[in-house]
Amino acid sequence: MSYFDGITPVTFEGPDSNNPLAFRHYDPDEVVMGKRMEEHLRFAVCYWHNFAWEGGDPFGGRTFERPWFGDTMDHARAKADAAFDMFRILGVPYFCFHDADVRPEGADFAENTANLEAIVDLFEEKMKDGPKLLWGTANLFSHRRYMAGAATNPDPDVFAFAAATVKTCLDATHRLGGENYVLWGGREGYETLLNTDMGRELDHLAKFIEKVVDHKHRIGFEGTILIEPKPQEPTKHQYDYDVATCYGFLKRYGLENEVKLNIEQGHAILAGHSFEHEIALAQALGAFGSIDMNRNDYQSGWDTDQFPNNVPEVALAYYHILKGGGFGTGGTNFDAKLRRQSLDPEDLIAAHVGGMDVCARGLKAAAAMLEEGGLEAALTDRYAGWEGADAKHMLHEESLEDIAARVARDGVNPSPVSGRQERLENHVNRFV
Amino acid sequence: MSYFDGITPVTFEGPDSNNPLAFRHYDPDEVVMGKRMEEHLRFAVCYWHNFAWEGGDPFGGRTFERPWFGDTMDHARAKADAAFDMFRILGVPYFCFHDADVRPEGADFAENTANLEAIVDLFEEKMKDGPKLLWGTANLFSHRRYMAGAATNPDPDVFAFAAATVKTCLDATHRLGGENYVLWGGREGYETLLNTDMGRELDHLAKFIEKVVDHKHRIGFEGTILIEPKPQEPTKHQYDYDVATCYGFLKRYGLENEVKLNIEQGHAILAGHSFEHEIALAQALGAFGSIDMNRNDYQSGWDTDQFPNNVPEVALAYYHILKGGGFGTGGTNFDAKLRRQSLDPEDLIAAHVGGMDVCARGLKAAAAMLEEGGLEAALTDRYAGWEGADAKHMLHEESLEDIAARVARDGVNPSPVSGRQERLENHVNRFV
Amino acid sequence: MSYFDGITPVTFEGPDSNNPLAFRHYDPDEVVMGKRMEEHLRFAVCYWHNFAWEGGDPFGGRTFERPWFGDTMDHARAKADAAFDMFRILGVPYFCFHDADVRPEGADFAENTANLEAIVDLFEEKMKDGPKLLWGTANLFSHRRYMAGAATNPDPDVFAFAAATVKTCLDATHRLGGENYVLWGGREGYETLLNTDMGRELDHLAKFIEKVVDHKHRIGFEGTILIEPKPQEPTKHQYDYDVATCYGFLKRYGLENEVKLNIEQGHAILAGHSFEHEIALAQALGAFGSIDMNRNDYQSGWDTDQFPNNVPEVALAYYHILKGGGFGTGGTNFDAKLRRQSLDPEDLIAAHVGGMDVCARGLKAAAAMLEEGGLEAALTDRYAGWEGADAKHMLHEESLEDIAARVARDGVNPSPVSGRQERLENHVNRFV
Amino acid sequence: MSYFDGITPVTFEGPDSNNPLAFRHYDPDEVVMGKRMEEHLRFAVCYWHNFAWEGGDPFGGRTFERPWFGDTMDHARAKADAAFDMFRILGVPYFCFHDADVRPEGADFAENTANLEAIVDLFEEKMKDGPKLLWGTANLFSHRRYMAGAATNPDPDVFAFAAATVKTCLDATHRLGGENYVLWGGREGYETLLNTDMGRELDHLAKFIEKVVDHKHRIGFEGTILIEPKPQEPTKHQYDYDVATCYGFLKRYGLENEVKLNIEQGHAILAGHSFEHEIALAQALGAFGSIDMNRNDYQSGWDTDQFPNNVPEVALAYYHILKGGGFGTGGTNFDAKLRRQSLDPEDLIAAHVGGMDVCARGLKAAAAMLEEGGLEAALTDRYAGWEGADAKHMLHEESLEDIAARVARDGVNPSPVSGRQERLENHVNRFV
Repeated sequence: MSYFDGITPVTFEGPDSNNPLAFRHYDPDEVVMGKRMEEHLRFAVCYWHNFAWEGGDPFGGRTFERPWFGDTMDHARAKADAAFDMFRILGVPYFCFHDADVRPEGADFAENTANLEAIVDLFEEKMKDGPKLLWGTANLFSHRRYMAGAATNPDPDVFAFAAATVKTCLDATHRLGGENYVLWGGREGYETLLNTDMGRELDHLAKFIEKVVDHKHRIGFEGTILIEPKPQEPTKHQYDYDVATCYGFLKRYGLENEVKLNIEQGHAILAGHSFEHEIALAQALGAFGSIDMNRNDYQSGWDTDQFPNNVPEVALAYYHILKGGGFGTGGTNFDAKLRRQSLDPEDLIAAHVGGMDVCARGLKAAAAMLEEGGLEAALTDRYAGWEGADAKHMLHEESLEDIAARVARDGVNPSPVSGRQERLENHVNRFV
Repeated sequence: MSYFDGITPVTFEGPDSNNPLAFRHYDPDEVVMGKRMEEHLRFAVCYWHNFAWEGGDPFGGRTFERPWFGDTMDHARAKADAAFDMFRILGVPYFCFHDADVRPEGADFAENTANLEAIVDLFEEKMKDGPKLLWGTANLFSHRRYMAGAATNPDPDVFAFAAATVKTCLDATHRLGGENYVLWGGREGYETLLNTDMGRELDHLAKFIEKVVDHKHRIGFEGTILIEPKPQEPTKHQYDYDVATCYGFLKRYGLENEVKLNIEQGHAILAGHSFEHEIALAQALGAFGSIDMNRNDYQSGWDTDQFPNNVPEVALAYYHILKGGGFGTGGTNFDAKLRRQSLDPEDLIAAHVGGMDVCARGLKAAAAMLEEGGLEAALTDRYAGWEGADAKHMLHEESLEDIAARVARDGVNPSPVSGRQERLENHVNRFV
Repeated sequence: MSYFDGITPVTFEGPDSNNPLAFRHYDPDEVVMGKRMEEHLRFAVCYWHNFAWEGGDPFGGRTFERPWFGDTMDHARAKADAAFDMFRILGVPYFCFHDADVRPEGADFAENTANLEAIVDLFEEKMKDGPKLLWGTANLFSHRRYMAGAATNPDPDVFAFAAATVKTCLDATHRLGGENYVLWGGREGYETLLNTDMGRELDHLAKFIEKVVDHKHRIGFEGTILIEPKPQEPTKHQYDYDVATCYGFLKRYGLENEVKLNIEQGHAILAGHSFEHEIALAQALGAFGSIDMNRNDYQSGWDTDQFPNNVPEVALAYYHILKGGGFGTGGTNFDAKLRRQSLDPEDLIAAHVGGMDVCARGLKAAAAMLEEGGLEAALTDRYAGWEGADAKHMLHEESLEDIAARVARDGVNPSPVSGRQERLENHVNRFV
Repeated sequence: MSYFDGITPVTFEGPDSNNPLAFRHYDPDEVVMGKRMEEHLRFAVCYWHNFAWEGGDPFGGRTFERPWFGDTMDHARAKADAAFDMFRILGVPYFCFHDADVRPEGADFAENTANLEAIVDLFEEKMKDGPKLLWGTANLFSHRRYMAGAATNPDPDVFAFAAATVKTCLDATHRLGGENYVLWGGREGYETLLNTDMGRELDHLAKFIEKVVDHKHRIGFEGTILIEPKPQEPTKHQYDYDVATCYGFLKRYGLENEVKLNIEQGHAILAGHSFEHEIALAQALGAFGSIDMNRNDYQSGWDTDQFPNNVPEVALAYYHILKGGGFGTGGTNFDAKLRRQSLDPEDLIAAHVGGMDVCARGLKAAAAMLEEGGLEAALTDRYAGWEGADAKHMLHEESLEDIAARVARDGVNPSPVSGRQERLENHVNRFV
C-alpha cells in the first residue's frame, strides 16, 4: 500500500477548479513562447526535505510520522517507494537527491558506497517509467566528521573522505543520467575567524572543485557542475556567500567556464538581495545554471525553505530566466520543506501543487511581458545614448584627458531624465 | 579668530587623565612592534562629514551652525581655515576630501575646475606645516546630474562629466602629494532592475576605472587607486557590494593588480559581515588598501557613520591589519560624523580624540596578541595536518579516484577535534 | 496653467486598458460586499511626500524641479494649487497634511500660526468642490528645535512650542472637518541611552497626549486621535516602536480608549512584522485606526516609502481590515514618495494610479476570500475544541491542580493534527 | 570517575594569570559597591544547553559525545552527576533547569511526573552542598504535542497537558527552594496568521499565566514568576516579542504586578534592540526580573546563544541593573551553549570561566561609572529645566490652550543645545 493511498495523479483542471489537488495553472502541454510549459519549467522534487527531514527544528524534534524513518536498507527502500509514488502523482519530470537522503549511514566509506550503489540499482529500475534526475549531490555537512567543513576542513582526512564520497556520488549521478551535479558548500565557511585560515581554506576549496571537474571529464559526464550561493547558516560565514562572491571565487581559480550557479530565492534574501537580482547578475556574468524555487520568510533570519507563493515575485525571476534564454541543463527545483505542523500526506502533495501553479503563473506572466515588449523597449530607450558613435568612441578610445577637454570645450552639462520606476512597476502589474 | 577658539592642541596625558580633550592612549611617539604609533595608524580626518555635512537627515534639515556654511569662495576659504585649525589641534598626519567638500558648486565643469584649483592653491600653502593628504576623491553622487549614477549612468554625457571631474580631482590629488585616490561608487548601482541593464553598467564602470588607472600612470601618480565596498544606500543595490564582490569585479576586468580596497566598518556591517572578515578577506585576496574606521549601529539599517567606540572590535580589525603587514599607502580614516545633536566645536574635537584613543588601544592590544603568539600558534596547530607530505600530495596531485581508492583501502574515517572557539575568545579577552 | 497641464482626470477603463493613466481595477462606484469601493478604501493623498519633499536623500539634494519650491506664501499658494489639481485628477476623496507641508516656516510661533491660518482659509475654499481631510498633523521633527524630540525634549520650552503648535494644527484640522488627527512620534525616541531618561520621557509623552485628548474634547472635535507605530528612523529607537508597544504605552497611561493606531506597511517591515500582523494585532487589541499604504523595500533598512505594488500582500492587509469591519474614521493613505529619479508630473499621477489599482485588486480579493469563507471555516474548525463546555470550564474555572488531576486520571495525551499551512496558502492564491 | 576528571575547581588568580581555567577578574569575595561580587552577579548555569543539547543544528546532528546521552533514568542520574560536578568546579551559586533537561521523556504525564520526582529527590540530596536553584521551568516546546503551542494550542487537551506539567514543575521548583519560576513562551506564537486566531490565543495565554500565579500563591511559593521576551524562533512570531510587548500583555490582563521579565541579550538583538535598552525599559516599567547573559551574533538572524565576550556591552547592561538597584530574586544566567565544534570537557568549563570573567569586568566597570557619577550628573543637567516650578506646572496643570497662549505671548522660541553623545561615549570608555 502506498503512503499516498487514495491520492490520484494530479491533473490540470483549469483556474476555476476548487480541487485542492488539481493544477489550476500548470498544464505541462500548454505552449508558451513556442515551448511546452513542462520543458520551460523543468520541475524537480527534492528527496531531502520531503523524505529525509523529520520536522525538527532547534527547539524540537521529529513531528512527522513516516513509515520509512529508520536506519536500515529496508527503510531506504520504503522511502524510495514513497518518493517515486509522489513523483508519479505530481507528474514531475525530474527529482534530485543527496547520497545521505537515499541510503542509511554506514559505519565507513565502504559501507556508505555499498549502500548507495544498492539504492542506485533500485532507482535505475524505478526511473524506467518515472522522472529523470536533475542533479545528484553528496551530503558533506550532516555527519559530525564534517562539523568543521569538508573540502575546507583543517583535517586532510576529512578532505579525503569528502573527495571519495563525491566521487561515488558523481559516478552515481552519471550512471542515472543526471543532468547536473551540485556542490552545495554545506559547512565550507567558518564559525569564527579566530580559528580559521581563510586564504588556505579557499585554496583547498578550489583544489577540491578542480578535482571534481577533472573527474567529470574523465568519466564523460556531460552535465553541469553547480555551486550554490548561500551567505550563512549553518556557518556564520559561508564561502559561497552570493552570486558575486561565487563568481569571484571561480574566476580567481580559473573555474568560471566549468562551474555554474544554482540560485535559491531563500539564500538570495538572506544575502540581502532579491531573487531576480541574483539571477540577472548570474546571467550578466555568464554563470547562470539552475534555480531552487523556495522562498525565505522576509522576517525570519534563518533559512525557512518555504514553497513559493507570491506570483509577482516569481514572475520577475522567470522574466530574467526567459530573457536570458531559459534553462539549459538546469531546472526549477523545489528545495522546499513543509512547515513542521503540516503532518499529512496530502500536505506534501498540496504544497507541490501550489508551488507548481505559482511557477506556472509566473512563467506565463513573464512570457507575456517579454512578448508585449514594453519593458525591453523602455530599457533600450533609456540607454539609447550609448548606441551613438561618439559615445562608443568615448567609452572605448578616449582618455580622461580627451574627455575632460571635450567637456570643457563643449560645456557638456547633462540634465537628468525621469527613471520612470513607478510607471514600470505599474506596467509589470498589468501582467501579474 | 578660529572656530575652535580656546581649544588648544590635544596632547597625550596618559590613561589617568580626566581631561576630555587629551589623549589617554594615543601617544604618536610610542613604539609598538618597532614602529611609532603614528606611523602604524596613519590617522586621517575627513572634510566631508566634519565640514560639509550640515546635520540633516531624511526627516530634518541643518542643525549645525557653522560660519562657513554657504556657497561662495569666501565660505570655502573660511571652511579651509577651520579645517586646518582642527587638523592642527588634533595633530593628525593626514586628511582627505572630495572636490565638492572644499569648493562651491559651479555652474558648469569649467567653473567647478576653477574653484577647485583655487582651493588647491590654498591647500598647498596650508599643507606646508600641516597634515598630508591621505587621499582625494570626486563627489559623483550629490548633484542631481548623478541621480542615476556617474560611470554607470544611462546618459553618456554624465559619464563624460564624471570622467572629466575625476581627471581634475586626480590631478589635484597628485599635485598635493596624495598617497591614494579613492573612487567610491556613490550611485553606481540601481534603484530597480526594471530600468537597469546591469551587464552594460558593469562594463561601463570597468571602462571608467581603466581610464582612471591609465591617467594615473600617464601623470606619474604613484599612489594607490582604491574602490570602497558598500552594499546599499543611497541605491538599493550598490555594485561595490562587499570585498568579495569588488574582488570579482576587478578580477573580471583584469584590474586586480591596479586597484585596492578601502574598507569601512559600517559598510561591512550593512553587508552582513564583521569588519575583521572584510579585512581578512581583502588580505587573502591581495586587495587590502586602507580603512574607514567608522562604525555602524548594529540595530540601524542605514549608514550611521559613528566614531568607533568598541575596543575589542577595533582590536580584531588591527590584528588582521598588523598580521598582514600593516598599511602600505593606506591609513585609518575617520569617515565619521557627529550625531546631529552634537552641536559644539568641542564635540568635533572630542569625537576624534575618543576615536583615536580607541584605535590606539585596539592597535596595542592587537600588537600584544601578535607578540604573545597564542592565536597564531593555535592556528598553526589546527592546520598542521596539511603540512605533511601526504596531505600536500593529495591536494596537488591526486584525483578523486586516487583519493577514493585510498580512503576505501585504508578505511580513512576521521574523528573531529574541538574547534576551541570559546577558549580562543577568552584568549583575546586577555588583551582587550 | 496647471503643473499637470495636459493630464486629464483619471477614469476607470477596465483591466484591458493600456492607458498608463487610467484605472484598470479601481472603479469608485463598484459595489464590493455591499459598499462602494470608494467608501471601502477611503483613499487619501499626502501633501508631505508629493509636494514638500524635494527628492533629497542623505547623499544628495533636491532632484525635483517644482515651481512651488520656495519659502514664501506665494510658493505655498502655488503648491496648494498644484496639490488640489492633483487631488482632482486622481479623484481621491481625501487628502492629509502637516502644517509644515503647507505653509512657509515663520520666524516664530506667531508667524507660523498666521501662515497656517492663511492657508487654511485657502484650503477651506478649495475643499468646497474637492477632497475632504482624512487627517491633519503637526511636523514636530524637521526644525532643529526638535532635534532631541518634541514632547520628550529635555527642554520644557520645546515641549511648550510643540504643544502650542499641535493646538493650532488640531484647531485647523477641526475647522477643515478632518476625520482624524495624527500624532506621529517623529523624534520621540533617543539616539543614545547615555543621555536619555527613558522613564521620564515616556511620562512626558503621555502627558502631552493627554493634553491633546483634552483639547479635542474641549473643542468638540469628533475625529479620532491616532499615533503611528515606527521602530526607528530618524532616531535609533522610536518610542512608538510597533503596535504592541504603542498599545502597552496607551494602556499604561489609561489612553487606550482615546487613541487609536495608524499602521504603515513600511514601518511594520522595519519592526520585523508583516503588515497583516500589525493590523490583526491592532484589531485584537481594539486599537485599529487607519493605514498608511506604502511599502518598504524588504532589502533596505531604512524607510523607503514606496507605492504598494504587490497584490497578494495588499490583499492580506485588506482581508484583516474587512474581517474587522472595515475602516471607521480611518482610510487608506498613501504616505508614499516617488523615487527621486521620477522627475515628471506624470510620475506623480501614475504612481498613485498604480497604487490605487493595487489596493482595488487587494480589496476585491479580500472580499472574495471572506465571501467564499474557506479561510474562516478552517479557523473555526481548528479551534472547535475550545467551544466545548469542558474546555470552557477548564479555561475559566479550573486551577492547575484541577487540571493536573484530570490529566493524570484520564491519561490525557493529545496527538497533533496538521496545521495545513501550505493548503491555506494555496487557498489564498486562488483569489490573488 | 567524573566527566571532568582532572579539572580542579576554578579559582581566582588575578589578571596576570595565564591559566585558561582560572578566573582573572571574578573574585566572588571582592566587594563592589558594598556587596560581594557573588551576591551582585548571582551566576547561574543552565542544564539545557550544557547537558541536554547534543550539538545539532538544522543541517547536522549530534557532535558531542557525552556518556549521559540516552533515554533512561540511569542516563539522567549520570547527567546529574556531571552537572553537579561542573557546578562545583565553577563554584557558581545557582543553577536552573527545564523538566525535560533532567528526566527522560515518559510515555505519558504520569510517567513524566514520576521521572521528574525521582530526579528532584536526587537534586535535593546534591544541593545540600551545592548550588541553589535560581529558577525551574517546564519544556513546553520540544515534544511534538506542543508543535502548535502549549497554552495557545488550538487543542484544549494540549493546554491541559501543559498546565498539568507546569504544576509539577512549579511544585518541584518550590520544593527545591527555587527563587524564581520561568515561563518561556517556547511556541506561544504562530507560523502563519492564516491558521491563527491571535486574539483568542492571547486570551488563553493570559488565563494560563493567571492559573500559574494562583498556584504559586496556593502553595506558598515566594519566588518570582518570570516571562521571557523573544521575537521569533522557533515560531515566525513569538507573542512575548520584546519587553514592551510583554509589558503591554501583562498590563492588559492585570498581571503586571505578579509577573516580571527575564531578559536575554540574544533575544534583545533579534528584536532590534540593544540589551541595555531592554533592561532600562523593563526598569522604567517596573518589570525587571532577571537576565540571560548570552549574546547573539549580530550578523546571524537566529538565536546563537553564545557566551558573552564583549566587556563594553556587558558593562552597559550592568550599569542599568546597578542603577536600578541590582537583582532582587533574579540573577545572571548563562543560557549559552558551546559552539558545536567545541567538543571537550574543558570547553564547557572554559566557556563559563570566560563568561564569568567578562561579567565581573562589566560589573566593576559599571560600579566605577556609577561611583564616579559623571553619566548621572550629565543626565541631571540635561533635564534640569524640568525641575523648575513652571515646567512642572505646565506638565501637570496646563492645557494646550494655556500653553499656546503663553508661547505666543512670551515668544517662546527655544534654541537647541548639544546632546554630547560622543563625549559621553568617550566617558564610558574611560571605564571599560
